[in-house]
Amino acid sequence: MIGKLNHVAIVVPDLPAATALYRDTLGAAVSQPVDLPPHGVTVVFVTLPNTKIELLHPFGEKSPIAGFLEKNPSGGIHHICYEVEDILAARDRMKEQGARVLGDGEPKIGAHDKPVLFLHPKDFCGTLVELEQA
Amino acid sequence: MIGKLNHVAIVVPDLPAATALYRDTLGAAVSQPVDLPPHGVTVVFVTLPNTKIELLHPFGEKSPIAGFLEKNPSGGIHHICYEVEDILAARDRMKEQGARVLGDGEPKIGAHDKPVLFLHPKDFCGTLVELEQA
Repeated sequence: MIGKLNHVAIVVPDLPAATALYRDTLGAAVSQPVDLPPHGVTVVFVTLPNTKIELLHPFGEKSPIAGFLEKNPSGGIHHICYEVEDILAARDRMKEQGARVLGDGEPKIGAHDKPVLFLHPKDFCGTLVELEQA
Repeated sequence: MIGKLNHVAIVVPDLPAATALYRDTLGAAVSQPVDLPPHGVTVVFVTLPNTKIELLHPFGEKSPIAGFLEKNPSGGIHHICYEVEDILAARDRMKEQGARVLGDGEPKIGAHDKPVLFLHPKDFCGTLVELEQA
């Protein structure tokens, strides 16, 4: 069912420093920072030949990643995102298999303007998993 | 400099259960478990269309991931691996940029029989980064 790894999301305490690290030290192509107020994050996209890394920093006062950064002040990998063809079919399959979908179970429009769901880390090897309709 | 994301490595407390999760719940193609005694891990490869997930479990008494599992009993993402063309050139670039290479700084032969280096998580946004010569 899952298709491509769409991205790996890394929460960082200092977005300009993290951007410089990926651009200058690791030599990758990085975007300008993009504020996404509805998602409470500012994101820099790191484009690799086969997938993306997303460097995330809290935006605004109620950022959903603020707590993660408090617990991980150096930053860390926040989630991985797998593509699926049909988000509702994926949601139903998760539930049938006994995996918990976060929130009310209804897909939301994600940072790429596509429907997404998040799955409970305790059900996925301690890893927060995002499913995005490709 | 960095090329493809070669893999995301996830340490799991129960390898058969994690394999079943990726195969049956997420519907991905999974390998048989492969013991890698020199690396102290047993690995199951999850093949996605654009990259791999590696499910890691400690093998033997001196596994380098045993401590991680003690700290993260549900499992978690352990490292991400980027491909580079020339591991020595990459190593020298890291050092010039002030990033710490773990160990003695000499590439070791990794789990894919290719030269690898690990970079200090504190210098990479709280993320353990492996570089592998492609």
